Amino acid sequence: VKAELISVGTEILLGEITDTNSQWLAARLPAIGIDLYHQSTVGDNLGRLAEAIERALERTDVVIMTGGLGPTEDDLTREAIAQVLGEETFVDADAEKQLRAFFAARGVSFAERNVKQTMLIPSATAIPNPRGTAPGWWVEKTLATDNPGDTKYIISMPGPPAEMQRMWEHEVEPKLMKLAGDGVLVSRVLKTIGVGESTIDEMVAPLLKSTNPTIGVYAKPDGVYLRLAAKAPSQEEAWVHIAPVEEEARRILGPIVWGADNDTLEGVIGDMLEQRRLTLATMESCTSGLLASTITDVAGAAQYYTGGYVAYSARMKMGLGVSADIIEKHGVISAETAEAMAAAARRNLDADYGIGITGVAGNDEVEGKPPGTIHIAVAGEFGADHISYTFYQGRQATKRRAVTTALFLLRRTLLARDA
Amino acid sequence: VKAELISVGTEILLGEITDTNSQWLAARLPAIGIDLYHQSTVGDNLGRLAEAIERALERTDVVIMTGGLGPTEDDLTREAIAQVLGEETFVDADAEKQLRAFFAARGVSFAERNVKQTMLIPSATAIPNPRGTAPGWWVEKTLATDNPGDTKYIISMPGPPAEMQRMWEHEVEPKLMKLAGDGVLVSRVLKTIGVGESTIDEMVAPLLKSTNPTIGVYAKPDGVYLRLAAKAPSQEEAWVHIAPVEEEARRILGPIVWGADNDTLEGVIGDMLEQRRLTLATMESCTSGLLASTITDVAGAAQYYTGGYVAYSARMKMGLGVSADIIEKHGVISAETAEAMAAAARRNLDADYGIGITGVAGNDEVEGKPPGTIHIAVAGEFGADHISYTFYQGRQATKRRAVTTALFLLRRTLLARDA
Repeated sequence: VKAELISVGTEILLGEITDTNSQWLAARLPAIGIDLYHQSTVGDNLGRLAEAIERALERTDVVIMTGGLGPTEDDLTREAIAQVLGEETFVDADAEKQLRAFFAARGVSFAERNVKQTMLIPSATAIPNPRGTAPGWWVEKTLATDNPGDTKYIISMPGPPAEMQRMWEHEVEPKLMKLAGDGVLVSRVLKTIGVGESTIDEMVAPLLKSTNPTIGVYAKPDGVYLRLAAKAPSQEEAWVHIAPVEEEARRILGPIVWGADNDTLEGVIGDMLEQRRLTLATMESCTSGLLASTITDVAGAAQYYTGGYVAYSARMKMGLGVSADIIEKHGVISAETAEAMAAAARRNLDADYGIGITGVAGNDEVEGKPPGTIHIAVAGEFGADHISYTFYQGRQATKRRAVTTALFLLRRTLLARDA
Repeated sequence: VKAELISVGTEILLGEITDTNSQWLAARLPAIGIDLYHQSTVGDNLGRLAEAIERALERTDVVIMTGGLGPTEDDLTREAIAQVLGEETFVDADAEKQLRAFFAARGVSFAERNVKQTMLIPSATAIPNPRGTAPGWWVEKTLATDNPGDTKYIISMPGPPAEMQRMWEHEVEPKLMKLAGDGVLVSRVLKTIGVGESTIDEMVAPLLKSTNPTIGVYAKPDGVYLRLAAKAPSQEEAWVHIAPVEEEARRILGPIVWGADNDTLEGVIGDMLEQRRLTLATMESCTSGLLASTITDVAGAAQYYTGGYVAYSARMKMGLGVSADIIEKHGVISAETAEAMAAAARRNLDADYGIGITGVAGNDEVEGKPPGTIHIAVAGEFGADHISYTFYQGRQATKRRAVTTALFLLRRTLLARDA
């Protein structure tokens, strides 16, 4: 089964919005045996939109669209599909009733043009959207130009990622899986941290000749990934190709592999803490809550995360038990202050481990320390351990790198404890 | 001047990485008079990469590439450009020396295959990359098929956004601006919050007929945006088209416009606090640090942000002064607890305003309250104000919406104070 992705929205072409949907969807197609041949972006223009749909229907079986389903005048995806298929739109009375109830439940007044979102055409079925106001469209039609029995599919989903993703996972993917024929691509991603991309590449050099699975190495914000991708008639057979190469890669890389596939560093560390019945607290200065927020992006984090401080000022740090002497002697931006912060968080919040982060995330010097100076410490029953480095990549990337490094340091600490 | 964007990387086509670079670059081209005609993504394959570059050189003047400049075997952008232009690569000795020094400064060992990143061809000049190890390439060449004086440009930048963005802003954009001829597209984005997309659409309906500027309305995570985009021979003339329509739009929308263009809600609120010499503290439960992190994404936030607590447990909340009676009587997930949290943050951290957030960000009920139940309060000298709602869109989107709503509530409070 061949598919084409069309993202709708002038704001994408002008770069005012990032089209994350295409990539999110691209990632999910190989595993259900659907080959993505084309990807394009079209603006909010009825003619160009209809043209793009028409061309897509000529060369593929399944057209997957995102965006252009909102209530405003420039949301034209429904109109374009109707025009291409030569069908008339009508309002779905049940859907309209539900939509009015949805607005009422949120205490929001109902603007009449929202009714547009409940339109259908005879070939379309509405796809439920509990996260938003615009249902999707599942369109099935045999075109005059097709062989009898050659059905074309248009799947139209809303642009907001939270709405689209839920719709895909709960409604669209299960139905598409039934359409897909044989030949699937399956991949395993091994995630490492603490070693550079070029070093990983050298370590796994003997494996890189492999053609099924193929092997790729690439750097990501949370470390370096190794991707093994195998093709086979079925998922089971593809895994048979992957298994021995994965085993060898894991043997070569050893403990620098922290997870696989959809694992996150915070999830893996959460599991480690939970299994060992250990708890964690944080005190952050330059990352100012991003570490706490990341740790608690994991369901069930309340089991092991006892809380955190965003101690942006020296005054708040001292109020929480960081000694004025340490700050005086070593400065706020120092490994010693990071260790005192970690110890204070651990003590105040009754945790087995504390993490402290201090540094310069902005692009001005602080205490004569350059932007990107970062000190991270973990404190536990053993005392404290720290990592210090200087690497400036702009405020947000610098904060994110510090959070990843903090999680890496905690993982290293927990592994050392086990050993 | 016509341009084409090519993103390089199999991981993009497989959806393992999101290509944010294309949109980031697309956003910057109109203002310097460069028209983006094509956008494509190519995998890490020398033949297909060379073919894409060749086709791009046929139909455009400037080819802008991102990705494929790393040190590993599947980084092939340099090789593909060299092949298309029929030139030989060589190692730039100065660049090699600098790269070795960069690794030494970070205390990282130097894998020999990094040398690849210092390769050049005769038509290419290296573009400095202080945020990473791979310099870019600025390629200028008159092809045999061109008219004399018709020079083609290939600009190749690294894939990591922090590296690419700095390179674009400091090195590439200033040079490209000189190439661009006449006819620019200029846009003004007005950002609103507190009113839905369909209502905004109705409010500005009389303006929607305008063709220069054109007007678009779209929903974003931090509110609804109105985009006015005008074409003219110069930036100055384009602004003349925009000014009266912008004035009318601002008159219609009034105080729901919180900012324009690159303004962020946290930046606008930071300015409001700083101008009024007011300070802010936070206590977060379900957003657990994301509000604090967002507030401090603004340079100079230390001037008005006195600190925050990530009080994930009822125990920590009570330790910080939230009354056990309130929690007992109303539950942790309640407007009353949010108000007590806001008041305690304000009191403990000596701030003029405190924000408290409590709710259910995960997808399980808490205290019988459904996922997406959110209570947000602001406390100040006047007492407290709050917003409560229920809307679940997955953990991360739910946290982000709560943070945006908290900033909206604080803005509303500050505006009421002024009135």
